[in-house]
Amino acid sequence: MAITMYDLAGVEADRRFSPFCWRARMALAHKGLDVATVPWRFTEKDKLPAPNAGRVPVIVDDGKVVHDSSAIADYLEERYADRPSLFPGASARALTKFVQNWTETVLQVGLFGFVLLDIYNHIGPQDQQYFRRSREERFGGASLEDVVKDREARLPAFRASLDPLRRTVERQPFLNGEAPAYADYVVFGAFQWARSISDFALLAADDPVHAWRGRMLDLRGGLARRSPGYGG
Amino acid sequence: MAITMYDLAGVEADRRFSPFCWRARMALAHKGLDVATVPWRFTEKDKLPAPNAGRVPVIVDDGKVVHDSSAIADYLEERYADRPSLFPGASARALTKFVQNWTETVLQVGLFGFVLLDIYNHIGPQDQQYFRRSREERFGGASLEDVVKDREARLPAFRASLDPLRRTVERQPFLNGEAPAYADYVVFGAFQWARSISDFALLAADDPVHAWRGRMLDLRGGLARRSPGYGG
Repeated sequence: MAITMYDLAGVEADRRFSPFCWRARMALAHKGLDVATVPWRFTEKDKLPAPNAGRVPVIVDDGKVVHDSSAIADYLEERYADRPSLFPGASARALTKFVQNWTETVLQVGLFGFVLLDIYNHIGPQDQQYFRRSREERFGGASLEDVVKDREARLPAFRASLDPLRRTVERQPFLNGEAPAYADYVVFGAFQWARSISDFALLAADDPVHAWRGRMLDLRGGLARRSPGYGG
Repeated sequence: MAITMYDLAGVEADRRFSPFCWRARMALAHKGLDVATVPWRFTEKDKLPAPNAGRVPVIVDDGKVVHDSSAIADYLEERYADRPSLFPGASARALTKFVQNWTETVLQVGLFGFVLLDIYNHIGPQDQQYFRRSREERFGGASLEDVVKDREARLPAFRASLDPLRRTVERQPFLNGEAPAYADYVVFGAFQWARSISDFALLAADDPVHAWRGRMLDLRGGLARRSPGYGG
């Protein structure tokens, strides 16, 4: 039986844009598991399976409910240990945490300043009020419009912040080496979030990060490339 | 026979402060290899073994000369494959590159703004003229004094830039997990560079990065802690 995954959706049901859901989606694909996704919106807290944390991703695998992208990766790695590893080796698992922490404290924080208003513009009216209130609170009262103001001027600094990633993927195909693994999916989730929701050109066409993102979009028969988005 | 390593030294022969030499030194210790270090100064280009790239670290192992900290790590890993691995697994080797690229584009670049003048003040008069000229050229003509100006004011931003490292080592003992490996030595090299040459308090005493650095200083019987430096 296919695994069910509750997946954040925009006003169109097939626009999937959560960076954390993309981590889980790519991890499921890495393991070669069948998945049936359920589009879910911010304001549909009561539609999630119990125990209900009010957030996605959530997977249901043969009756077992697992929340949180990191817990899902750990669950899949243990439950499907005979399938391709998400963390090839204990050291890789530990080092993947550094990549994840960079993604969450540098990359995703930086991306908010470019795509926050675009998210608002792609979600349903029932979600927009919730999203504006909760996000403006998170950004210390700044309006969504203020958070993304002058994003053109901030682009060079954002691109410079990608140097650790850029230098790595210009010298090897994936963060994990010759083939992708969970570290790649974590970073890719952030870029796929932006790509799903924003037409702003974050990456120059000749950027090695752009080429790496292209390799990620091509994985599993173009799973991520086929998902509605912008910028290739 | 012990491996010989040419190691950058300050005006006192036992003050060893190159971040790249510390990577090599820790890697040699990780492999449990005997090493005899030779103190070397910036202006002693002609004292290095042939083929001579004019830089350290350089090791000489049974007649074989290996330059460059990354090449040395690769050499040690292959030549002493039966000893504890510096990169436990192909994925760990690939992911270590991300840690290294973060260290070189974020951490070490940030540290220059705090310790550059302190380096100058700890090297011999014969090296000072060379160091000032070459570094001021590298920093676009800014004086050493200008590069470190207002470092107190820049400290909060520097400490914030350590978030990916901080979040990782507050949840696991080492970047590599339960035990250190090359990724830890790369990052540690940068902090040991600063510690060897500067009394500026880069890390708050209650910072998880400070605790991790303490674990690194304690390795191999306190190899790095015994080396002349400041701040514990």
